[in-house]
Amino acid sequence: MEKRFKVGLVQMSMSKETDINRNKAVKLVEEAADKGANVILLPELYSSQYFCQKEDIELFNLAEKIPGKSTSIFCETAKRTSTVIIVPLFEKRTVGLYHNSLVVVNSDGEIIGVYRKMHIPDDPSFYEKFYFAPGDLGFKVFDTEFGKLGTLICWDQWFPEGARITTLMGAIALFYPTAIGWHPYEKEKYGETQREAWKTVQRGHAIANGLYVCVCNRTGFEKTVETQGGIEFWGSSFITDPQGVIIAEAPINKEAVIVAEIDIDHIEEVRRNWPFLRDRRTDHYGDIAKLFIDQK
Amino acid sequence: MEKRFKVGLVQMSMSKETDINRNKAVKLVEEAADKGANVILLPELYSSQYFCQKEDIELFNLAEKIPGKSTSIFCETAKRTSTVIIVPLFEKRTVGLYHNSLVVVNSDGEIIGVYRKMHIPDDPSFYEKFYFAPGDLGFKVFDTEFGKLGTLICWDQWFPEGARITTLMGAIALFYPTAIGWHPYEKEKYGETQREAWKTVQRGHAIANGLYVCVCNRTGFEKTVETQGGIEFWGSSFITDPQGVIIAEAPINKEAVIVAEIDIDHIEEVRRNWPFLRDRRTDHYGDIAKLFIDQK
Repeated sequence: MEKRFKVGLVQMSMSKETDINRNKAVKLVEEAADKGANVILLPELYSSQYFCQKEDIELFNLAEKIPGKSTSIFCETAKRTSTVIIVPLFEKRTVGLYHNSLVVVNSDGEIIGVYRKMHIPDDPSFYEKFYFAPGDLGFKVFDTEFGKLGTLICWDQWFPEGARITTLMGAIALFYPTAIGWHPYEKEKYGETQREAWKTVQRGHAIANGLYVCVCNRTGFEKTVETQGGIEFWGSSFITDPQGVIIAEAPINKEAVIVAEIDIDHIEEVRRNWPFLRDRRTDHYGDIAKLFIDQK
Repeated sequence: MEKRFKVGLVQMSMSKETDINRNKAVKLVEEAADKGANVILLPELYSSQYFCQKEDIELFNLAEKIPGKSTSIFCETAKRTSTVIIVPLFEKRTVGLYHNSLVVVNSDGEIIGVYRKMHIPDDPSFYEKFYFAPGDLGFKVFDTEFGKLGTLICWDQWFPEGARITTLMGAIALFYPTAIGWHPYEKEKYGETQREAWKTVQRGHAIANGLYVCVCNRTGFEKTVETQGGIEFWGSSFITDPQGVIIAEAPINKEAVIVAEIDIDHIEEVRRNWPFLRDRRTDHYGDIAKLFIDQK
């Protein structure tokens, strides 16, 4: 296992044409590999615009099988560039059953496994509960030549439980493909607070768990429903070290490929100095599996 | 129940004399009450210097009973100032059994209950495992005229599980009395990263749980072991709202009484917009009660 390796994040904008998006994603993955990245992450649902802005059964046509077109493309790309690639996609599992998933592909071009988004949001213009069944595979780590990589997807990022359990499975880094942005009508009033909260809660996961956190968002404005305001995706993809220090960050409104190094010795050092895993009160955590603890 | 009320944090430095510390704490609580505070928090182990810099059985003499001297003083102060006071103290439970605890006193001057620190650290100059048995009361909320207040103590602040379970019990705010600072020999290299991580992980709890977090630290330099470098407590007591926005903050190296408002309607608004509690995957959180999840 490598003591040091590089992660690349592909922050991109999406057009209405899936082929254009796929081709662009391949090009940017190649760019990340050229910059030395060993593990490369794409944004959530990389091959299309964020279709969950409306509920429309026609849009299930965007879904694909695993293996399928995306895995075929990125297995080939992974082998050719000798990189591990994390490919988030709209998974058609069977007729009438779809997931918001990701596939981890190793540098031999083989599929290592699948993670299915566990926490599914549903808010105005983010109608994900209509499209995606919540994941049934639980939290996951994937054994790669660069160590155990933990994966989660977007809305999962607000839930400390997912980050913690993935850490307990041995992850050295968490990877969050993401599609988050502003409603234009509330950006001025709430925008910076929202973006800052999003960064902070994930830096918090890095600190509490003593590992790296890598977050890859899309950028650009997408208006898929004429009568609605659209979403301005806020980019800001970032990598934070185990103390919550941001070691690479992309701009808000531009495509970017960013690369930063993961250092296993740094995790070792931070966890020796801040030995949180030693002191957990597992005898008193059972109630976390309740939805609420009703008081008398 | 009040829709809005004010929290006061008493950031103070401690002398070697417990009587001086107790008198100062009362004065600063009065000052907080004068500034309109309804709920007032003192720093961890408020009545003494941070004695855990060495392991010395003589120092168990600093412990006190509940009820005892501190509760007597602050029950009277609470009634006189019509405030709820959170009093962290070194609890002598019986011969040979001690805890790092806090008592919540209501504005009628009655003890509502006790919380005993659940996560006990042990690092160079923070030898708490020598003095304190880990708490056996679990996580707690206290019903007050200002709603359910959740309490945790210092090292607990690094553990998302405590914040989450306390939230699930109905807390509208988490109160963390604290004693954290720099080793002078590493301050220049690591100091700002450490303090920033400490703020970030707690702002993260506020965001993930949609509630206020109130953190009260001590300030000043304490050197209780001649042959060691002492600890420079970094102050920086703060209150953050449910989106991680810091709404009051004390300086690093000065005593201060800071006051900010808690607004129940703001919690309501934030949790409606970010409905994390709705989407938790309680069917998949069981493994969080393991120390580690060994892989094949």
